Amino acid sequence: MSGHATNLRVKLPLLCALLQLATVLLFAFFVQYDSQTSPWLWHEEVQLQQRPLDHEFYPRYPSFQDVHVMVFLGFGFLMTFLKRYSFGGVAFNFLIASFALQWSILIQGFFHTFHNGKIHVGIESMINADFCAGSVLISFGALLGKTSPVQLLLMAGLEVTLFGINEYILLSLLQVKDAGGSMTIHTFGAYFGLMVSRVLFRPHLDKSRQREGSTYHSDLFAMIGTLFLWVFWPSFNSAVTAHGDDQQRTVMNTYFSLASSTLATFAISALVNQGGQLDMVHIQNAALAGGVIVGTSAEMVLTPFGALIAGCVAGLVATLGFKFLTPILAARLKIQDTCGIHNLHGLPGMLGASLAPWWPLWQPQMPMERGAILKMRSLAMPPDTLCFEDQIYWEVPEEHHDGFQVVEALSTEEADKATQA
Amino acid sequence: MSGHATNLRVKLPLLCALLQLATVLLFAFFVQYDSQTSPWLWHEEVQLQQRPLDHEFYPRYPSFQDVHVMVFLGFGFLMTFLKRYSFGGVAFNFLIASFALQWSILIQGFFHTFHNGKIHVGIESMINADFCAGSVLISFGALLGKTSPVQLLLMAGLEVTLFGINEYILLSLLQVKDAGGSMTIHTFGAYFGLMVSRVLFRPHLDKSRQREGSTYHSDLFAMIGTLFLWVFWPSFNSAVTAHGDDQQRTVMNTYFSLASSTLATFAISALVNQGGQLDMVHIQNAALAGGVIVGTSAEMVLTPFGALIAGCVAGLVATLGFKFLTPILAARLKIQDTCGIHNLHGLPGMLGASLAPWWPLWQPQMPMERGAILKMRSLAMPPDTLCFEDQIYWEVPEEHHDGFQVVEALSTEEADKATQA
Amino acid sequence: MSGHATNLRVKLPLLCALLQLATVLLFAFFVQYDSQTSPWLWHEEVQLQQRPLDHEFYPRYPSFQDVHVMVFLGFGFLMTFLKRYSFGGVAFNFLIASFALQWSILIQGFFHTFHNGKIHVGIESMINADFCAGSVLISFGALLGKTSPVQLLLMAGLEVTLFGINEYILLSLLQVKDAGGSMTIHTFGAYFGLMVSRVLFRPHLDKSRQREGSTYHSDLFAMIGTLFLWVFWPSFNSAVTAHGDDQQRTVMNTYFSLASSTLATFAISALVNQGGQLDMVHIQNAALAGGVIVGTSAEMVLTPFGALIAGCVAGLVATLGFKFLTPILAARLKIQDTCGIHNLHGLPGMLGASLAPWWPLWQPQMPMERGAILKMRSLAMPPDTLCFEDQIYWEVPEEHHDGFQVVEALSTEEADKATQA
Repeated sequence: MSGHATNLRVKLPLLCALLQLATVLLFAFFVQYDSQTSPWLWHEEVQLQQRPLDHEFYPRYPSFQDVHVMVFLGFGFLMTFLKRYSFGGVAFNFLIASFALQWSILIQGFFHTFHNGKIHVGIESMINADFCAGSVLISFGALLGKTSPVQLLLMAGLEVTLFGINEYILLSLLQVKDAGGSMTIHTFGAYFGLMVSRVLFRPHLDKSRQREGSTYHSDLFAMIGTLFLWVFWPSFNSAVTAHGDDQQRTVMNTYFSLASSTLATFAISALVNQGGQLDMVHIQNAALAGGVIVGTSAEMVLTPFGALIAGCVAGLVATLGFKFLTPILAARLKIQDTCGIHNLHGLPGMLGASLAPWWPLWQPQMPMERGAILKMRSLAMPPDTLCFEDQIYWEVPEEHHDGFQVVEALSTEEADKATQA
Repeated sequence: MSGHATNLRVKLPLLCALLQLATVLLFAFFVQYDSQTSPWLWHEEVQLQQRPLDHEFYPRYPSFQDVHVMVFLGFGFLMTFLKRYSFGGVAFNFLIASFALQWSILIQGFFHTFHNGKIHVGIESMINADFCAGSVLISFGALLGKTSPVQLLLMAGLEVTLFGINEYILLSLLQVKDAGGSMTIHTFGAYFGLMVSRVLFRPHLDKSRQREGSTYHSDLFAMIGTLFLWVFWPSFNSAVTAHGDDQQRTVMNTYFSLASSTLATFAISALVNQGGQLDMVHIQNAALAGGVIVGTSAEMVLTPFGALIAGCVAGLVATLGFKFLTPILAARLKIQDTCGIHNLHGLPGMLGASLAPWWPLWQPQMPMERGAILKMRSLAMPPDTLCFEDQIYWEVPEEHHDGFQVVEALSTEEADKATQA
Repeated sequence: MSGHATNLRVKLPLLCALLQLATVLLFAFFVQYDSQTSPWLWHEEVQLQQRPLDHEFYPRYPSFQDVHVMVFLGFGFLMTFLKRYSFGGVAFNFLIASFALQWSILIQGFFHTFHNGKIHVGIESMINADFCAGSVLISFGALLGKTSPVQLLLMAGLEVTLFGINEYILLSLLQVKDAGGSMTIHTFGAYFGLMVSRVLFRPHLDKSRQREGSTYHSDLFAMIGTLFLWVFWPSFNSAVTAHGDDQQRTVMNTYFSLASSTLATFAISALVNQGGQLDMVHIQNAALAGGVIVGTSAEMVLTPFGALIAGCVAGLVATLGFKFLTPILAARLKIQDTCGIHNLHGLPGMLGASLAPWWPLWQPQMPMERGAILKMRSLAMPPDTLCFEDQIYWEVPEEHHDGFQVVEALSTEEADKATQA
């Protein structure tokens, strides 16, 4: 397939090399260990008044590891549900998260821990970098199967930068509290992703419709992602809250909210199905909305019963969104949202922000003119006939080919285009 | 399928709504943050003598997260082994655990942390609620594939209540120590589940026999569950023991016991097979018996070699149970135990309790007359011809249909019944 | 198959019984709780000056659990990629790790915590035992599909013993620092495994070539292993470093190194493929090399940008190794390395050791003459025609048989041999 536009052989290595080189150089000039990570600073300045176990590392590290599992395994496997794009789901997730966290160390560091000409990094920098990567992965969910890794890496670079600016405005300038990121992570990631999906709108996506479904086992792989996200969401919301009762309260509110959103999801899923059957898409996604909706408020005194009610509302809204809103978004607003991120992150994120009294009238401002860059043919974007298909970017075991020839399909597509032009 | 008895469209939403509403109301009236979770109580009363990191949250939370993974991912994936009921296995596990933990906060809270008219909840309440949910999931194992989610939710409500009573009698009245729950969780969950399975006995279950097996990949999904249970079992047994050496000792004893039960399981599995081959059912289940058997005694001074011996015995007994006892239970005692919970939780739980000197002559007292409620036709129970089948409750990807028509099968079944009646 | 050489019915139970009995007896005589685990020692001697939460258990246990997940789930699922040997991959991993950790408690304990005639075990003993098991599993990677569990258990016994000696020489005699085990775990495990693979060289392995590939879903199962290894590697490298800044620095360096090795792997994978497609084998393995290469140096002041560069080099070298070196090893040096451990553990391990200034000229000294023992027909080794095949050691669901008859294949093989002899 070397002559085709989706060939990654030159484009992907080149872009990775450029991005990684830029990151390495910026790290070399600007990034250094903070006072808890540098042996000199810690031993000579800080530890004199403290014992080793008072190190900030100990209360934060278990939360960090849970968040890390969510970003790489949770989001990764959640996106394996497509029958012919599971490699792409889990592995492009891996690639863009690995880049986004590096870039985010720079961007977030510049806004929050930059002094004396250096960015100082410690355990909280890692948690925040993972959060930012999570936001990029939410956006990826809307684009799943329709973009090349080249496009995704460029998007990640742009999104991380805007994430940093938006977060700085909200948290530092407007003094908003948003520990679990209802606004900064979920709402931002969702509407950024939907905007990109709108820019990349494909009127002929039905050409790949036969690949957009799942198989029995791909749905089970996706459940691995769902359950890791669900189980560790209390750590996500509490990872950077204040120590002591704050962290405990955030965990407990998230725990209750998730439990009730799960019941609501099962209930609504059966209710809206003609045959009274449950839908795996709802269970995989909407049951998580309970974690999103309390992102902002979980650290507050939401009370256990308040958390239960928030979760119910989230599961209800998200499941109804999957059933009724996603088709409308695609048909009317030209927003093709593969994973339904609007239902899981957009709506519950907005609701979650409005739960808190200080919700500012903030909307993500996406520059529409940048779309042209993301659409360029040289970015290895898949044609309409080959969305949701691993074979264009992956070596796939023969048993999975199904007599399907990527090269031929690509040739036909390009011949078609030549004819039309 | 809307006219059929297994249709969930009205029943499941209605029951979920009722249970969730009841829970929300009871939470509103009775549940409040404990002194470590409420900001006022913590900052004004407790923290004066302490530093933030002395908060009970820090030593307990990593254990809680491990237990949480076990309940939702461990038990969930362990139950995906059936070839046509993997959705049901992992997702009904998700549903009933989400309800059971809420209900258990109320029941256990009433028995253990109720004062001044309020239930006070903190990190230990969450661990104990997860433990109780685990007990319900053990019972679910015996019923896997043969019950509707409506029946399972009702069972969970009943079982959580009786779990609370039984635990109160053992731990509070009889002053039994049982940190890892050999008695309260495993023995109780196993015999409760077997009792329900006896009540719901199906003489014609052979009509669904062709679905009771596994496929190559469904067995691998189940191994995800097994390994998470195995790896985190030391946290399960130690999650609520005293701090310091107690917790360390419990972890170590469980670690050794599991290692030796794994060797014993492999040995016996090869020995009892005619062709000298290993059986995945044994590896998936019996290797875990080493965690069950030291549930009561792991916090005691069992010594490392005592733990190894306990594990050997557990692996041996559990594997032999799968080979020889399960068929007898089904044939003679009319107890159809899909996952073999008697071998993994029943026998090792009893042995584990008797390892400790204070084992009281306690037997779970299940009210047989309640069976009629769980058997009612309106609970969406699957007919004999459709056990172990996801299609009755789930939208299943087309590739998985195998030319099999649920509606037809249901109609035939009901026509048969009409003829017989 | 009871008459065949690969029958496990007598051999495996017998060997398990012998090994477990020996371990139990040695534990009974030599192993006892250390002063942090024994209630008497802790309460009477240590705790007088400390509070319960100062117990070494609290900073170490979350790291231990992460390492435990890596050993059993990470390595286990990484080895499920073969289309017909996924049971063997995950479950033999389970068996030999369970034995290796017990044996390692004895060997490592003898070298490091033996005083007054007793081995004293605590939380660090468990971490180190898991490390040693990890080293055995690395070696298993080279042999995957070509050895029986009987051979693997014997190999584990031998390797754990030599691991203990090698580690004692490096860490205690030569005073080398190697917290993440670039030398002691990765380099040792890799070259030990390659040596054994050389000893067991099969000139006719092409008879099983049709089984050596993966399927679409077996590659996804392997990604579960990859991602757990990747996510928890910071805990692996930092699990036994000094508290405070050391642990924080080790985690951060490993985190950065892994992120950049992932980008390098994707870049090189696309570059070396004729069609510009990515290769799942590279993503599953080479992306992890960033964790291996900083094993020795992560606790040092590597600086964030130094870690990024190390990761790039590791991903680059490992991916090129898979593409160009593995075929040469097999063709020229008669080393058949199923998982490519030389690329993931061997090369990056050596590089990682040489990153540190004190790298001694150390080479693993494998006794070649011991090979004869591992090759004995009575060890249930699979014939060339039946490598990479679960059916010889496992009961496999019927759907997976593909009309393939193990008994016949075995009979033909043995008839062939009889004719040749």
